[in-house]
Amino acid sequence: MNATTVDPGTLNRGNADVRLARAALTRLMEPSDLAGLALISVAGPVDALALIRSGAESSAVLEQEMTAVLAETGAGRWPGLADALGRWRPRLADLAPERDLAVVERYGGGLLIPEDPAWPPALADLQLAEPIALWMRGRVLHLPEQRRCIALVGSRDSTSYGANATGEMAAALVQRGYTVVSGGAYGIDASAHRGALAAARQDPSYWGSVPQGRTGAGSGAGGVAQPPTLAVMAGGVDRFYPSGNEELLRTVTEQGAIVAEVPPGTNPTRYRFLQRNRLIAALCEVTVVVEARWRSGALNTAHHAAGLSRSVGAVPGSVYSANSAGCHRLLREGAAVCVTDAADIAELAGEAGSNLVPEQRGAPALHDGLGVEDLLLLDALPLHSATSVDKLSVVAGLGTASVLAGLGRLELLGLARRLDTGWKRGG
Amino acid sequence: MNATTVDPGTLNRGNADVRLARAALTRLMEPSDLAGLALISVAGPVDALALIRSGAESSAVLEQEMTAVLAETGAGRWPGLADALGRWRPRLADLAPERDLAVVERYGGGLLIPEDPAWPPALADLQLAEPIALWMRGRVLHLPEQRRCIALVGSRDSTSYGANATGEMAAALVQRGYTVVSGGAYGIDASAHRGALAAARQDPSYWGSVPQGRTGAGSGAGGVAQPPTLAVMAGGVDRFYPSGNEELLRTVTEQGAIVAEVPPGTNPTRYRFLQRNRLIAALCEVTVVVEARWRSGALNTAHHAAGLSRSVGAVPGSVYSANSAGCHRLLREGAAVCVTDAADIAELAGEAGSNLVPEQRGAPALHDGLGVEDLLLLDALPLHSATSVDKLSVVAGLGTASVLAGLGRLELLGLARRLDTGWKRGG
Repeated sequence: MNATTVDPGTLNRGNADVRLARAALTRLMEPSDLAGLALISVAGPVDALALIRSGAESSAVLEQEMTAVLAETGAGRWPGLADALGRWRPRLADLAPERDLAVVERYGGGLLIPEDPAWPPALADLQLAEPIALWMRGRVLHLPEQRRCIALVGSRDSTSYGANATGEMAAALVQRGYTVVSGGAYGIDASAHRGALAAARQDPSYWGSVPQGRTGAGSGAGGVAQPPTLAVMAGGVDRFYPSGNEELLRTVTEQGAIVAEVPPGTNPTRYRFLQRNRLIAALCEVTVVVEARWRSGALNTAHHAAGLSRSVGAVPGSVYSANSAGCHRLLREGAAVCVTDAADIAELAGEAGSNLVPEQRGAPALHDGLGVEDLLLLDALPLHSATSVDKLSVVAGLGTASVLAGLGRLELLGLARRLDTGWKRGG
Repeated sequence: MNATTVDPGTLNRGNADVRLARAALTRLMEPSDLAGLALISVAGPVDALALIRSGAESSAVLEQEMTAVLAETGAGRWPGLADALGRWRPRLADLAPERDLAVVERYGGGLLIPEDPAWPPALADLQLAEPIALWMRGRVLHLPEQRRCIALVGSRDSTSYGANATGEMAAALVQRGYTVVSGGAYGIDASAHRGALAAARQDPSYWGSVPQGRTGAGSGAGGVAQPPTLAVMAGGVDRFYPSGNEELLRTVTEQGAIVAEVPPGTNPTRYRFLQRNRLIAALCEVTVVVEARWRSGALNTAHHAAGLSRSVGAVPGSVYSANSAGCHRLLREGAAVCVTDAADIAELAGEAGSNLVPEQRGAPALHDGLGVEDLLLLDALPLHSATSVDKLSVVAGLGTASVLAGLGRLELLGLARRLDTGWKRGG
């Protein structure tokens, strides 16, 4: 573990039996195994694990309570507890939660559980699909407040346009005090982590003092620094996957953290990637898709975010780029807001004052505030030679009195000039 | 006038005195002169002109009725009829409506008035700001139905990206039987007209038979061909403005038409450009902004369209292009729908069946329809060496019965293969 670690461990303290049971359950049950989560909800993690370990074929009382919990989520019919036990028990042989905890602690990490004060309240929005626990390793072992986390996600086969846009947005978001969350994959994910890390490197105060707005609320300890970036993984945190991102992910753990709901040694699978996406969406205030093809896993993250009533942004691109087609699809379907820079994203995250940003762009033209009559008159004023009030009246289609009053106003604004021979355009 | 003209003139027939009066009024009153339009509304065009020509200082009866008409539009207080007469009368000296009509007829054009059967009903949505009349010249002297007209508008200083996208969309829209409407300016407007003309040139049947969906309803004559493009001008139709577009606008009149609410000889002014934009918006089912800076007249057209409850589209582009900033602004503010090609635009225009377009893009992955258990099982199946049902049960986290049933389903789909030694990925 790094010597300058800010957050020396809020994990692995207290609740030893609950932590051990949850560690075990993350191995027995796949992410979002609703029957499993219903069992934990009604029996508690320790008794749920004991039931699976016992030879019991089922339990009528538990099954009834689980059915009620599942019905609340609208899950509909389920095959029953006996079926579920048959699903979990084949994995009992591989179970060694103490070893798993030891592995992660050796990396300076640990297991964050819902019973910890640092458990992110944002995850409760997942309702029954709230993860059993989160395996973490890194410089910080808490998760920043949801309102300070922005997900930047996208395709693995990014273009240089997407990579540039992602990197610049990530860096600017970190400079604004946000944590950039992504999935550690190639392409857009990697650009997001890299941009965030680069911004933190360039800020000498980043890990020294704790600037305002960068205080993580997660640990409850106060004054804990906000990590520049988090990678939420589909496989175990003991390995850096994909291997081509090993160096990058190592740096992410040195400066931020990596997180997974599956235990060490777990391979990422398609199913786990899809479930991992719901965690990214739940942990973040805003999910931004920078580049995505018409069908892309990044769209799945965006749909999760929308389902959780989180804000979704999409970065536009060329209509000729297949890598932007998914973003345009989100925009077209009204599933995402168009964002072009970190300021747009901060506005989506509800940053105070930034609602004014659009109005400030571009210098207003002097004639923007003119009334219709003054605009007609300005159009009628010749640029070079002077003209008479009568002529202006004909050209502008205004009465003489209106022309005289309007010339006075335009002269004040420097838009009309009075010469001996008449009037011309000012400026 | 071109020898193959399809629509030999629905204009300039009947209503001679009304036509002459409206021709005169378009010179006395600027576009959207609400007091003038209120006067025409209550007195009729012939008496309105007679009043302006008379020496009368005002008319208490007319002023009262005009006030009522203006109040209906929410126009609020107005300076009164005497003031308005003072505005119109300076232009009486230049009045020669017979000459104006003769000029336009010499070009094979004429004046379309609300009393003509060919007057576009779409313009009624402008309420009191409906134009006094429309000066036209071209191959067709009617306006196509609103539902078959698409406006493509944008900045004068377009990029090659914007020019390409505009040209391709315009051509594809004409191929679908739409008329592309724009403002005849440099940049995006010119690309829109050019793309539309190119598509018409490539279609040998374009001006021969009348394909379905290309029948203009405007003239009421039936079987009138749909022009590929229309230019709505801010100045008179007797001149091709800007001069750099002279050749292009000449071709537009040969293949389509140019239209203006101001009489021959009128210069375009800033005010008239802004008013011209409301006509483009009113005549079209959809207004698409292809490229626009943060502040751009094209946004004004879009806002007019939205105000008329017409659909608005915006074409996305690079976040680094200042020429797309206005489009992104419209998207961000929810004022436009993201459109990337003619199919998207046709869908906005309500084209039948095109709602299905998005679902057809991109080949669906074979595993898209799989349930969660089959997806878990597919992820667990090794690609190369075969594995046992028990091993699959552990890896997938599924009971043995679920594994066996799932393997059966995956085998049917060709996704699993049974070997002597066990099971592996199929395909």
